[in-house]
Amino acid sequence: MKRPTPEDLLNDLRPEARNEPESSIMTVINHGFGRQGLIPLWAGEGNLPTPRFICDAAVKGLEDGETFYTWQRGIPELRDALARYHARLYGTPFEAENFFVTGGGMQSIQTAIQAIAGEGDEVVLPTPAWPNYAGPLRMKGSRPVEVPMTFAPSGWQLDLDRLFDAVTERTKAIVVNTPSNPLGWVAPAEDLLAIRDFARERGLWIVSDEVYARYYFPQDEAAGPLPPSFLDICDTEERLIMTNTFSKNWAMTGWRMGWMVAPQALGDVLENLIQYNTSGTAAFMQRAGVVALDEGEDFLAEQVRQAREGRDIAYAALSSVDGARFAVPEGAFYLFFTLDGMTDSTETALRIIDEAGVGLAPGAAFGPGGEAFLRLCFLRERGQLVEAMDRLTRWLARNR
Amino acid sequence: MKRPTPEDLLNDLRPEARNEPESSIMTVINHGFGRQGLIPLWAGEGNLPTPRFICDAAVKGLEDGETFYTWQRGIPELRDALARYHARLYGTPFEAENFFVTGGGMQSIQTAIQAIAGEGDEVVLPTPAWPNYAGPLRMKGSRPVEVPMTFAPSGWQLDLDRLFDAVTERTKAIVVNTPSNPLGWVAPAEDLLAIRDFARERGLWIVSDEVYARYYFPQDEAAGPLPPSFLDICDTEERLIMTNTFSKNWAMTGWRMGWMVAPQALGDVLENLIQYNTSGTAAFMQRAGVVALDEGEDFLAEQVRQAREGRDIAYAALSSVDGARFAVPEGAFYLFFTLDGMTDSTETALRIIDEAGVGLAPGAAFGPGGEAFLRLCFLRERGQLVEAMDRLTRWLARNR
Repeated sequence: MKRPTPEDLLNDLRPEARNEPESSIMTVINHGFGRQGLIPLWAGEGNLPTPRFICDAAVKGLEDGETFYTWQRGIPELRDALARYHARLYGTPFEAENFFVTGGGMQSIQTAIQAIAGEGDEVVLPTPAWPNYAGPLRMKGSRPVEVPMTFAPSGWQLDLDRLFDAVTERTKAIVVNTPSNPLGWVAPAEDLLAIRDFARERGLWIVSDEVYARYYFPQDEAAGPLPPSFLDICDTEERLIMTNTFSKNWAMTGWRMGWMVAPQALGDVLENLIQYNTSGTAAFMQRAGVVALDEGEDFLAEQVRQAREGRDIAYAALSSVDGARFAVPEGAFYLFFTLDGMTDSTETALRIIDEAGVGLAPGAAFGPGGEAFLRLCFLRERGQLVEAMDRLTRWLARNR
Repeated sequence: MKRPTPEDLLNDLRPEARNEPESSIMTVINHGFGRQGLIPLWAGEGNLPTPRFICDAAVKGLEDGETFYTWQRGIPELRDALARYHARLYGTPFEAENFFVTGGGMQSIQTAIQAIAGEGDEVVLPTPAWPNYAGPLRMKGSRPVEVPMTFAPSGWQLDLDRLFDAVTERTKAIVVNTPSNPLGWVAPAEDLLAIRDFARERGLWIVSDEVYARYYFPQDEAAGPLPPSFLDICDTEERLIMTNTFSKNWAMTGWRMGWMVAPQALGDVLENLIQYNTSGTAAFMQRAGVVALDEGEDFLAEQVRQAREGRDIAYAALSSVDGARFAVPEGAFYLFFTLDGMTDSTETALRIIDEAGVGLAPGAAFGPGGEAFLRLCFLRERGQLVEAMDRLTRWLARNR
């Protein structure tokens, strides 16, 4: 046998898999992961490990021998807890049958896409956006139709006419992420209403990723504790799939555990997809999910307080930098800023790792409109964040 | 708005997702799961929870705060441990760079398929087979080409000419599962060689699922401790992807943790796919994987002993049943038997749950050639298995 070359092997893969570019976030993380002294603000996670009382529930699950195959849709106790949690937040009753436990927010998106879109289909999404909506769409043979939002220091704007104009006969869904990663933009209630009405009229699915809903810092003091949500204005039995995760609220990024809210009619289809994707989520981990939902509000309140403080620290520091421009985030925990004259955000992020010891995510990763930006995660213990902002502002001053 | 009906919602899903039949294994499990007194032999797992020394490593990982995002391909320590484990088993060196940690054996298969096959492609696989090869292929828009094997009480036979004749211009891969779930069939070394040579000549991928390799009970006393493997005869840098799991060897079915062995050239592509599927596996769980690989041989030896004993118990019991026919399994931990006159294996499995208190998997789930069979998992504590076989043989006697 002539031994195949690496090129031969790659050529024999599916083109959509072979040609998928590495996320430049991963390029940057792989460059700096584990480096001594680096302050990593590149990923969407804080500096706290999962709190002990949540871990303890998983440990108890292990001690109780909950290490067997379990319900593909999630253990009943966790689906009940999800219904309770949503009822408490949104002030209306929810049924456990609308909840599906998954292997993380990413897996929720993957599963939603598998249900809705495939070869020849299109899905419309505003950008800059987390790259992991477009990636799985391409893997499934469908086309992400990216609609760039407009940047102004007064705030990012979604042009609804432009969004709706991007919809064609082939469009199956609109993806909305509010509060937005990486923008910190929070969709106004009237935008959600318009999207809902348009989607209803055209029979489109809405895939709504509201994983940052609890991280909300509105300028308007009169705003309530939660940003506008599709759950305020939609029925669970319409064309709406919400994707969510335990990661952000309860410092559980590494657990890979999330959920979907979907019509009950989809139950058997989603169960099949979960079976083919991961065949469910460890029962002992799901016990930790129950405790996070039922008893995690104090921890979460402290996380949100820290994020708000972090936003203010990052905001103040970057405001002092000549040529840095950004909109003040009203939600999530990212500051997405542009630097006058920066042409390659990936190269810049790599240099900032090497020369300033701070890890940022390159805006290029987030699609059209993000190329000239860098994303900074400000959910971080105060001392570390102050140090990171100090390193960063000094580096920026040196490199103007 | 006219509220959409459940039918409307289903009609708006992708046909491949909507039309995918529920696995009749899930039909049966959902019918009987958690029922008092039932002895479940329907799934591929034993009755022991994960041993304490393995759980302890996960608990330590939690205590050490290993709850953050981690390497998408797996933590270096686990990839190193996988290389050590394979080197020990197969007597040749392996490199950590050929190993990719996944969210279970299912996720390994899903990822392999995503890399290799898509819309318009075909993948050839012998049946009866675990249904979760064909399912994800259909979800990806590709066609599983099922090649029925031939049943005889002397042993199942794979007709290689028939297998190779099923290969067309559209074929991308051949899936081989040895030892086989549900058959207990172990591919002879000469079959693997012929498949390897054919695949090399035609530039096809081999996806080899050898998750039951450690459960091997050959009739031939002179056989070695391991069944023939593609790892004996292939190079890691050719068109071979092996899918594997921690589930079966170390009683970790519920953990959802597995691995792939694949050419290093595929590294970036597989990393991307892992990112879009699950974004990695919990680091604290991976610590348990390291311990299972490095220190789990005694536990595994006891599991294999129990499986061999279980096979003998199940074999002896069913041999006494008029009209029951089967081949003696030489590997894995299933007995796949047919009953003269049985026309609907799903209905029969449901009746056996209700009337005999034993959970079996219907052969219909395993594709062409399996319809008239039932699958029994014999990896079970002796007392329970004896009781289950007693219930089953009495029910069979009553229902002739």
